[in-house]
Amino acid sequence: MISGTTTLIAHIGYPTETFKAPLIYNPFFEKAGIDAVVVPMGVKAEDYRDFLRSIFRLTNIRGALVTMPHKVTTVGLLDECSTAVKVAGSCNAILRRADGTLLGDMFDGAGFARGLKRKGFEFGSAACLVVGAGGVGSAIAASVATESPGSIALFDTHPASAESLAARLRQHYPALRVEIRDSDPAGYDLVVNATPLGMKPGDPLPIDPTRLDRKTFVGEVVMKRDMTPLLEAAAARGCRFQVGTDMLFEQIPAYLEFFGYGTTTPEELRAVAEVSY
Amino acid sequence: MISGTTTLIAHIGYPTETFKAPLIYNPFFEKAGIDAVVVPMGVKAEDYRDFLRSIFRLTNIRGALVTMPHKVTTVGLLDECSTAVKVAGSCNAILRRADGTLLGDMFDGAGFARGLKRKGFEFGSAACLVVGAGGVGSAIAASVATESPGSIALFDTHPASAESLAARLRQHYPALRVEIRDSDPAGYDLVVNATPLGMKPGDPLPIDPTRLDRKTFVGEVVMKRDMTPLLEAAAARGCRFQVGTDMLFEQIPAYLEFFGYGTTTPEELRAVAEVSY
Repeated sequence: MISGTTTLIAHIGYPTETFKAPLIYNPFFEKAGIDAVVVPMGVKAEDYRDFLRSIFRLTNIRGALVTMPHKVTTVGLLDECSTAVKVAGSCNAILRRADGTLLGDMFDGAGFARGLKRKGFEFGSAACLVVGAGGVGSAIAASVATESPGSIALFDTHPASAESLAARLRQHYPALRVEIRDSDPAGYDLVVNATPLGMKPGDPLPIDPTRLDRKTFVGEVVMKRDMTPLLEAAAARGCRFQVGTDMLFEQIPAYLEFFGYGTTTPEELRAVAEVSY
Repeated sequence: MISGTTTLIAHIGYPTETFKAPLIYNPFFEKAGIDAVVVPMGVKAEDYRDFLRSIFRLTNIRGALVTMPHKVTTVGLLDECSTAVKVAGSCNAILRRADGTLLGDMFDGAGFARGLKRKGFEFGSAACLVVGAGGVGSAIAASVATESPGSIALFDTHPASAESLAARLRQHYPALRVEIRDSDPAGYDLVVNATPLGMKPGDPLPIDPTRLDRKTFVGEVVMKRDMTPLLEAAAARGCRFQVGTDMLFEQIPAYLEFFGYGTTTPEELRAVAEVSY
């Protein structure tokens, strides 16, 4: 129940109609007795800079969830950013600290990596291939890098994107082996689809699944349905895998910790969420 | 349940802790199946001008409830204001119209007048005394003026306030008889306490109740408790009266109509409200 003592988390993006976070966080806050509310706020790109400054003048705001089209712009508007933000080049979480300064972080990749670890995947010395070096691919690569894997290979149909991400990874993780490769998934411990391929019926597969080893763990970012054609093919080959929505539900505990609201489990969040995928 | 399709009504003021509107509107919206939410937003005076401009750039906002300390400032920040706003010199409701322009209105007085009419009070030719010519007194006088009473007498311990309100009333209602008087309530059909007297234990009475005629209707704005010492004295003399919270609950249907959310009754609002007075 929203009252005058309720703390706001602004959920900023445009358009708002597809926002899912309020349907997950708010039932959780209510169940957990946390006097906070996620409020969807539709902000167009041209208004964002002024809006962000104004909204953080509120006396009862704690932070913001940032989504399209503002994740990249946000990086330049904060007082301090996490390394994940610097590597990803985008930001999806803002905390207003006690002194009023704004700290940015990025949890898309953290959600991905948390989910893998909870499924028993061991990053140490793992050979990892990230296909797609856009926003979500960069975020995942940034989080994989923090887990000290053996190597990260990158592929993007736009070579400049992969090269740019590789440069950011090398800058912040100088000991990490980072390579630009093709999309052949053979021989990796982890293969991640961080492209939108799989959202639309008839999309080509992001990789050739007949080249997947049985030992390879396959991660997916597409959330339109749990079992994308890629994951169907990976499962048929006996690979372990992670569905796209796991990345979402796994990152929410990271957000909660960031905002200082304790933590929870993806299972509990899925149980209270008023949304299905 | 707040989702990405939910429309926002910003409840703007500072401090927010005593805000009651979210506890009344939101249960009503839920019960009525209206996909809207009142969100408390704490804004300090020095931030208000910029904030108001930014918040109305949101793609999913319909309007705002404005409270202390912004009711007067708001008047100068809108594209158009109702006559009630011009007479009251303050604004507590903002609607963003389809063309993006901002319309201001003021419902404190409307709530007061609606309540009286529903209690059977007839304004036509009534002699009315408003004690206290500050924000709420001005709002009440503005609404009483629209009901074509016989006359409005004003009293304020600061004569300049009463004279300023009288001038605004005469400007907008040139046919209305407006007088500056003392606080003697004898002979009026309606006497309104629009001062804060009665909020604190030991406050002096705003008028001398021994001078009240039995036929006089007594209106109160103090909401700390329903039966203020003034109303106790008026009731003991056999006067009809209206308690302070009636002004609040009676004005909410006017707000709802203003925002385009249909209407309701104060009784229904009191039944769903998660707040007691």
